[in-house]
Amino acid sequence: VPTENDSKRRHIVRSFDEELKLLIQRLAEMGGMAEQNVGDSIKALMSRDVELAKEVRSRDDKIDAMEEEIDQFAIRMLATRQPMAVDLRSISMSLKISNDIERIGDYASSIAKRAIRLAEQPSIKPLVTIPRMAQACQGMVKDVLDAMVERNTDRAMNVWQRDELVDQYYDGIFRELLTYILEDPRQTSLCVDLMFVAKNLERIGDHATNIAERVHYVIHGEQINRQR
Amino acid sequence: VPTENDSKRRHIVRSFDEELKLLIQRLAEMGGMAEQNVGDSIKALMSRDVELAKEVRSRDDKIDAMEEEIDQFAIRMLATRQPMAVDLRSISMSLKISNDIERIGDYASSIAKRAIRLAEQPSIKPLVTIPRMAQACQGMVKDVLDAMVERNTDRAMNVWQRDELVDQYYDGIFRELLTYILEDPRQTSLCVDLMFVAKNLERIGDHATNIAERVHYVIHGEQINRQR
Repeated sequence: VPTENDSKRRHIVRSFDEELKLLIQRLAEMGGMAEQNVGDSIKALMSRDVELAKEVRSRDDKIDAMEEEIDQFAIRMLATRQPMAVDLRSISMSLKISNDIERIGDYASSIAKRAIRLAEQPSIKPLVTIPRMAQACQGMVKDVLDAMVERNTDRAMNVWQRDELVDQYYDGIFRELLTYILEDPRQTSLCVDLMFVAKNLERIGDHATNIAERVHYVIHGEQINRQR
Repeated sequence: VPTENDSKRRHIVRSFDEELKLLIQRLAEMGGMAEQNVGDSIKALMSRDVELAKEVRSRDDKIDAMEEEIDQFAIRMLATRQPMAVDLRSISMSLKISNDIERIGDYASSIAKRAIRLAEQPSIKPLVTIPRMAQACQGMVKDVLDAMVERNTDRAMNVWQRDELVDQYYDGIFRELLTYILEDPRQTSLCVDLMFVAKNLERIGDHATNIAERVHYVIHGEQINRQR
């Protein structure tokens, strides 16, 4: 027969789980906004859509505000709930994941800034590799957020492994742009901007990889062996 | 007359303060290593010192390992000490600051990587602005760590304001390098490398600024108003 104490304990337990679920959900929402900004910043770049680029930049303020809100939520849970083990790791890591997401948003915002500038310049040869690289990065961000919500270690590891492909894209795009400059130095400024765009995407991949490592740590209580 | 309970409580309090001091000290050591790597990576770049650049890269592994160690320390303190108010904020923020320092180390390591590659290429006009910018960034990292250890809000705010100077350095160096490419396209690859070095330094300044914001939050329990 359950005592009143058991019933109370169950109530507290359920309510803690709900709060933790809400925290991770907010983190996933924040991540979803960053992911959308990654996609939209590249879309704005390729289609010379200044309005969309400006929208990305204004949405980035919202992402920054969410980091603060999520951190305060996490810190309040640490203070009031005294979580242990996997719950403690989950809340602690959410402080770090919010930072990774904020950086991803920041890189998308940088791309949008360059998209605004580049919209006024003559276009160069179609750069099919940049949207492909962006798609790979966006996919990593999406999947690592799902891995976080589902606490799915295989999915996190899969994202972690895909970072190598992003690095290969980066090297290829970089070399391609270098060739363009040598062929026509008047395109230097434009090509350098696109090099930085590729670098921003590469960093976005890095941060998705960081999140994958943190998800692994939440689940297993130890770090991924970093040697790939 | 103090009871045995009072005495126990005092003992626990003292020992908590010691642990917190140790946590912040480890964070400051980690930051000191990153700061040194920033300085040494630029020194290696300017003096074409491949050995020093390699040293920076191997020290970066140590910095990465320290992030894990510090995070585990912080999470253990959260679990066992149930800290409140400024102590809770201090421990929570150390999880985020360790990440900022890890990124600073990462950027220094990127600079060292380029220094190794550039050591084999012919040098270009003396770039006095890059070491100056590096010095400004290194100073920001040093001072923000001191502000963290001392919980000194004025010092943190001072670092926060200096980021604008770093951004100005960046814009100046970028324009200078662009001119070099236009004058002599054979220097493209070299100049692009240096542009990325300047970008890495600018990001290091950003992370020092982030740490300043976190120190402010630890002390005051609220964010700096981000409008400069």
